[in-house]
Amino acid sequence: MRRTFLSPPMRDCHREIASWIEPLGAKVAVDAAGNLRTLYPADESDAPRLLIGSHLDTVPNAGAYDGILGVVIAVALLEGLERRKLPFAIELVGFSDEEGVRFGTPFIGSRALVGRVDQELLSRQDAHGISVRHAIEIFGLDPGKIPDAVLQDDALGYIEFHIEQGPVLENLGLPLATVEAITGQSRLELTFAGRANHAGTTPMNLRYDALAGAAEWITAVERIGQDTSGLVATVGKIEAKPSATNVIAGETHLSLDVRHHSDNVRTRMVDNLIRQAESIAKRRGLAVKTNNILNQKAVAMDSFLTDQIEMAIRETGARPHRMVSGAGHDAMIMAEKVPVGMIFLRTPGGISHDPAESVAVEDVALAIQCGMHLLGQLASSAKFQTRTHRAQSG
Amino acid sequence: MRRTFLSPPMRDCHREIASWIEPLGAKVAVDAAGNLRTLYPADESDAPRLLIGSHLDTVPNAGAYDGILGVVIAVALLEGLERRKLPFAIELVGFSDEEGVRFGTPFIGSRALVGRVDQELLSRQDAHGISVRHAIEIFGLDPGKIPDAVLQDDALGYIEFHIEQGPVLENLGLPLATVEAITGQSRLELTFAGRANHAGTTPMNLRYDALAGAAEWITAVERIGQDTSGLVATVGKIEAKPSATNVIAGETHLSLDVRHHSDNVRTRMVDNLIRQAESIAKRRGLAVKTNNILNQKAVAMDSFLTDQIEMAIRETGARPHRMVSGAGHDAMIMAEKVPVGMIFLRTPGGISHDPAESVAVEDVALAIQCGMHLLGQLASSAKFQTRTHRAQSG
Repeated sequence: MRRTFLSPPMRDCHREIASWIEPLGAKVAVDAAGNLRTLYPADESDAPRLLIGSHLDTVPNAGAYDGILGVVIAVALLEGLERRKLPFAIELVGFSDEEGVRFGTPFIGSRALVGRVDQELLSRQDAHGISVRHAIEIFGLDPGKIPDAVLQDDALGYIEFHIEQGPVLENLGLPLATVEAITGQSRLELTFAGRANHAGTTPMNLRYDALAGAAEWITAVERIGQDTSGLVATVGKIEAKPSATNVIAGETHLSLDVRHHSDNVRTRMVDNLIRQAESIAKRRGLAVKTNNILNQKAVAMDSFLTDQIEMAIRETGARPHRMVSGAGHDAMIMAEKVPVGMIFLRTPGGISHDPAESVAVEDVALAIQCGMHLLGQLASSAKFQTRTHRAQSG
Repeated sequence: MRRTFLSPPMRDCHREIASWIEPLGAKVAVDAAGNLRTLYPADESDAPRLLIGSHLDTVPNAGAYDGILGVVIAVALLEGLERRKLPFAIELVGFSDEEGVRFGTPFIGSRALVGRVDQELLSRQDAHGISVRHAIEIFGLDPGKIPDAVLQDDALGYIEFHIEQGPVLENLGLPLATVEAITGQSRLELTFAGRANHAGTTPMNLRYDALAGAAEWITAVERIGQDTSGLVATVGKIEAKPSATNVIAGETHLSLDVRHHSDNVRTRMVDNLIRQAESIAKRRGLAVKTNNILNQKAVAMDSFLTDQIEMAIRETGARPHRMVSGAGHDAMIMAEKVPVGMIFLRTPGGISHDPAESVAVEDVALAIQCGMHLLGQLASSAKFQTRTHRAQSG
């Protein structure tokens, strides 16, 4: 499966979902950024709205659940209301792009809702030289109307169901979690430089081995990851030069990926790892260079919604679990404008972005139950209904 | 500089060296394997012969001294004799191929002298599809006469001067060393296999990180190298898959190069390193596979010649040093048939196989003095002159 931003399979997907929603009394629309948007009306016409959704696009060779399961659960919630109206409208959103496959930049869909689709993004081209702007036109939409896609003041919040894409819930034996935050992320490139030399004629004590130094540092990265609660630290890329069996490496290039829900902890640990690299290099007579590629802050979910979700999970009979998402989601973008809450579903084997991606039917049933409880709680919460996204920034 | 087996620059090289040797009263010939071979006669016509030489071919983008310096020193020794005759003839040899650049296999020249040029080698092709056999014909030689290149019973031994190509002598502040042995060598490929996973969503305690496991093992390789006298152990190649910043490595491939003058120590240490890889893998829930690529035995130099060389170095006023060569040399092949001795010259910075390769004029002068002393010693040694290569195997 491969369903990218405004590709032909996306049109089929919109058509299919529309055929489920229209019998429920809601009209399906597609905004100028290609997002599927449907308003299920409130009991009063000037009521605010709660958004529920996720993304409809996929990676190449994708599984069947990443993103779209959150939209399908939202449809199930509308069905579950059996035409009952709540004190707020429900806007179902199926984002057009979260994965960033077609244009090499993610979140095109949710960026439209927070007003961050700019001319630079619209001019970006895919592998065939088609710009975002032109792709929108080809799909039959009007790029001039993108400003109309932006969230209005009547938005109360955004709720997203998503598969965990990790092994944590499976490991705990739990079906659902409420997400407290999406981690911040640092990405760096490092180079250890030593001296390439003959592996046979250079005694151990006269070496400046850039790979041995890098290896020592990789074990330090792992140790700091293990010793710091909530931290993940990964070296995923390595290249040694000249890369010959009988030549001591003169240079080694590495990547570093560090994530934590506290930006303070994350940046402190990155500094710590850079200092360790420098100290390893100094002791070994190597040089080390570091290059910061990304420094993305953590995004907290709304604490009121997080509490409400926890309560709703408990109502299903499942034990609630609070966790941090190590991957980015549309909720991270939506949080720029409205209070957001997020629910993770257990992912067997932690396998995602792969046709083997799966989810248990019972877990989906529990997620729908959780969503129905949540809607009930929010419908009876005066506190929730009087909040607006302006309130959050206050 | 690039002078490979029977290439046009090799013909120029032969011509140049011939122009130095012929005035000394020796006639230059090229055998059917392209080796330059010159007999400087003894005082009696049926006397045995001592071979002195090294290789004339180079790596691509070579320095000026690797190999050919040993031939030039041999010429200087003949000059130094000032037409005096010794009780043995001196055969100067300039080997046609030691580096193995053109045909991807080294020692074609010295293999001809020990009778190891077989049909398989003759059929081997270079990058242009020219076989060794055809290259010999193109150079104007007759491959059918290769058996005539084999050493006869009158060969007393083989002496080789060569740059160290390592940092040991420079580090000791010494100009010359006598080589006791050429190390044996093990080459292996290893694969650590774990599970590729998302670097953000997979907590540290639920990872099967094939690169972190490999890094731990690389530090073990270095430690065993440092802790075992005379051992060199090197990981020069590494490849992690899928090689993405945000993906935990599911597989890591590594090379291992281990050398020691004792085959027993070397194979024990290789076994030790394999066991450590297995134990690291087991503890981490990884799998490890090892593949033996090369298991080449150490070659001892002749102890009589080694003692004589040590004495000759002392005669020059330099402090002699005994060392092991971590790289292969023609002497290693010649040792299959005759007693061999080898002298290393200090290599500034240990730099070789590079245009920056150099050697001090004073060190070359000392090497020539050492050679003259050695010839004098051997000329007055009845023990040496009555040995034949048959005696060695006895």
